[in-house]
Amino acid sequence: MKIGIVGGTGDIGEGMALRLSPVFDVIVGSRERDKAETTCTIGIETLRKRGKKCSLKGVSNQTAVDDADIVILAIPFKHLLGTLETLGGFEGKIVISPVNPMEKRDFFTFVPPAEGSAALLIRRLLPQSARICTAFNTIAANRWKLLDEELNYSVPVCGDDQRAKQQVMEIVNRISKLQAFDAGPLAASNLVESLTPLLLNIARYNKMKDVGIQFR
Amino acid sequence: MKIGIVGGTGDIGEGMALRLSPVFDVIVGSRERDKAETTCTIGIETLRKRGKKCSLKGVSNQTAVDDADIVILAIPFKHLLGTLETLGGFEGKIVISPVNPMEKRDFFTFVPPAEGSAALLIRRLLPQSARICTAFNTIAANRWKLLDEELNYSVPVCGDDQRAKQQVMEIVNRISKLQAFDAGPLAASNLVESLTPLLLNIARYNKMKDVGIQFR
Repeated sequence: MKIGIVGGTGDIGEGMALRLSPVFDVIVGSRERDKAETTCTIGIETLRKRGKKCSLKGVSNQTAVDDADIVILAIPFKHLLGTLETLGGFEGKIVISPVNPMEKRDFFTFVPPAEGSAALLIRRLLPQSARICTAFNTIAANRWKLLDEELNYSVPVCGDDQRAKQQVMEIVNRISKLQAFDAGPLAASNLVESLTPLLLNIARYNKMKDVGIQFR
Repeated sequence: MKIGIVGGTGDIGEGMALRLSPVFDVIVGSRERDKAETTCTIGIETLRKRGKKCSLKGVSNQTAVDDADIVILAIPFKHLLGTLETLGGFEGKIVISPVNPMEKRDFFTFVPPAEGSAALLIRRLLPQSARICTAFNTIAANRWKLLDEELNYSVPVCGDDQRAKQQVMEIVNRISKLQAFDAGPLAASNLVESLTPLLLNIARYNKMKDVGIQFR
């Protein structure tokens, strides 16, 4: 299975690529193809030192969409609209949104678009045949990158296409100790996206780092 | 320390009273005083059988406010406005809101009032000197009542009065294995209140019961 990461050289995308590439074929997309290639060269070396084989290829964002079965939109909310306007070819693909529309004011707040969530905005922007799921919203960039530590978290997954959601949950469950939970239809994504500003507030006010979540 | 529970004979309030009364003086309020007295008689017996002493007294909702240092508003969101309109005497008191404005449509959704959260609605309705904190939002009624099981959850607490928030967090930390986390100012309560519809969706779509949360 080929997983493309749009924004794969960004803060979140880079760590995701490192965690995913020993298990899946990962295609790292970037606005600048050179940057994607460099990130992959470094990533392959990082994993090799840990004795891990991986499948990691650096390309443009558009090629990451075109060549993948599943596309992860690892981009900050503020760049979501601009990035999706430049890309096509999402027809029939599974598209994963880990995007959280939030702002830091005195504290972190959830600031959704008019559609109610980043996921529903993506739903409006992409072709109807794209099968959108929300996943990986609450895992901090640093945690993705700390390869020697397990990711022992719960991952809520939303989506309207049951088979796509099942497939995304299976991907989640194959990464470290992540555990996927069905969190309902795509319209329930606002409840998932608002977890991240909450976790950032918890980290800030309790002097913690990279706080995650477990359901139990 | 005297803790009054407005709505103390309701689904959540009853279990709260059972968990709190071995540690604190608990004053159970109800619209019907008789019902509060009966609930307390049964509660005292339930705890006695488990070899636990407790301090539990059944009164009217107004007396629960008047006689307590700290008041928990254990009422469903739909009754919040109506209940607070009938009550006074909140001046200077610490008021805890575990209230979650939500609705069950096809799935559970967060439906906040115009103020943005139940906590901010309470802030508007109560006198300025009332020190409002959000706490206990995510603990299911059944979990409160299962006295033989520990409550091994995280409890996010919001509030603007730092001393009041500290006191509420200390109360949380004295109940079973609950662990309080400072989740920021009262204006961040929407992020806490929207956890509960998320957890209800998770329970529903994963065939789980009374799902709770841990930060880590």
